[in-house]
Amino acid sequence: MKTSEWLRAGGKKFKLADVPTSGSLDIKGKKISREEAEAITAENIEKLQELQFLMYAEHKQKLLVVLQAMDTGGKDGAIRKVFGALNPQGVRIHSFKRPTPTELAHDFLWRAHQHTPPSGHIQIFNRSHYEDVLVVRVHDIVPKSKWKARYDHIRNFEKLLTDEGTTILKFMLHISKDEQKERLQARLDDKTRLWKFEKGDLVERRYWDDYQSAYEDAIRETSTENAPWYVIPSDRKWYRNYAMSTLIRHTLENLNMQFPPPEDGLEGIVVE
Amino acid sequence: MKTSEWLRAGGKKFKLADVPTSGSLDIKGKKISREEAEAITAENIEKLQELQFLMYAEHKQKLLVVLQAMDTGGKDGAIRKVFGALNPQGVRIHSFKRPTPTELAHDFLWRAHQHTPPSGHIQIFNRSHYEDVLVVRVHDIVPKSKWKARYDHIRNFEKLLTDEGTTILKFMLHISKDEQKERLQARLDDKTRLWKFEKGDLVERRYWDDYQSAYEDAIRETSTENAPWYVIPSDRKWYRNYAMSTLIRHTLENLNMQFPPPEDGLEGIVVE
Repeated sequence: MKTSEWLRAGGKKFKLADVPTSGSLDIKGKKISREEAEAITAENIEKLQELQFLMYAEHKQKLLVVLQAMDTGGKDGAIRKVFGALNPQGVRIHSFKRPTPTELAHDFLWRAHQHTPPSGHIQIFNRSHYEDVLVVRVHDIVPKSKWKARYDHIRNFEKLLTDEGTTILKFMLHISKDEQKERLQARLDDKTRLWKFEKGDLVERRYWDDYQSAYEDAIRETSTENAPWYVIPSDRKWYRNYAMSTLIRHTLENLNMQFPPPEDGLEGIVVE
Repeated sequence: MKTSEWLRAGGKKFKLADVPTSGSLDIKGKKISREEAEAITAENIEKLQELQFLMYAEHKQKLLVVLQAMDTGGKDGAIRKVFGALNPQGVRIHSFKRPTPTELAHDFLWRAHQHTPPSGHIQIFNRSHYEDVLVVRVHDIVPKSKWKARYDHIRNFEKLLTDEGTTILKFMLHISKDEQKERLQARLDDKTRLWKFEKGDLVERRYWDDYQSAYEDAIRETSTENAPWYVIPSDRKWYRNYAMSTLIRHTLENLNMQFPPPEDGLEGIVVE
């Protein structure tokens, strides 16, 4: 199974617009139905629970999952659906908000580095250090020379992490502009979700094309062998969950983790 | 004044053994007496107080001072003498001890990154991330392939810091093996300092040559334009203090810091 290529993005010629926002193909390139995908997702999640327990027990591997998306792209939903069933003791989620004054007084990777996973853990970045080449670029928050230099810093940072034992998966949840419109409208029309609505989201929507370009460049520049980007067609949530859970499962399976050997002398002991 | 070259170390041909451990020359290459040096040190420290206040007020620049030395090399004394008079609100010192289990569960730069200075501050590393290519190498704590890769990670990390606004000075306090012998003996003979003595220091002394090689390589590999190493002849403490305070003073002066402009409309106000 070529998990290594499925939904993988990057390279100089990569175009975000070439990736469909509505997914329909499985890992072998065959059409997959919603029912089939949901069945596999359920299986994946069960397997992920085992793998995460093994990871925690072995205390060697660590997994960093970077989640990026346009507003309403489904980051929160993906976290709930794919990681919600895992033991929270081994899974940490960090949401990157607008930087605090203390964070701004340091280099842009300072806050990201603090939340990288320790051995035995899965760390999810809900947004990430990539905001510093996305929103920061779209709104000219730092000069071009500075955000351009950051691609290199990001590659180096992620190389450091992987060289020292972290596995990195980066997901961009890819939705269409129409899908965003519907989701924003749904939030406006639903009193139980209206609290989640920020007027700023409507302003950001006007920068759609700028964001798409910024994503495209970020993925081109930073999708590496050790820290690949996957663009996940996310207009349909069942497909998104299927794709993400499949990729994470296969990545963890490929780590060949083992339970640590028991202490000597435990064999044959009968507790009295 | 060529501060840029004085005591500067690095380059492929750099040999630590070529640097004297007993200093006698000033920044212009002229012989300097103890009295002259002490007078200049006092002046430097007064000037450093002003510069540090200016740095704090401007809130743009940040200075990272890395201090490395063989045991008894004088790191604690240097911190007391050179930085002791500065306002502690703008100066932070972090001592790198044996890594905790939490620190070991992350990449080797994780703990260093957390303690990098925010804008307006001077941060001193008493030992540093360089221990991961020094003690770790001498005692084979990680395989050679791993510590060799760390030179690159250190260069990248320090480039990130300087690109994003940190000034870095790295000092190796250079003493002779004989001087170490005397200092260790003095600790053993002085009841008020015996508490500071660790038997491990005598064990480490047996690895003197290995440590010198490890320092030599670290300095060769990581002395860059943006993050230079200075090897400070430190057998004589007055010379060490003179050299360090001179280098820090001139580095800060070259930053051309300015007090921020006052709020509009404050001119001519008379408080009644």
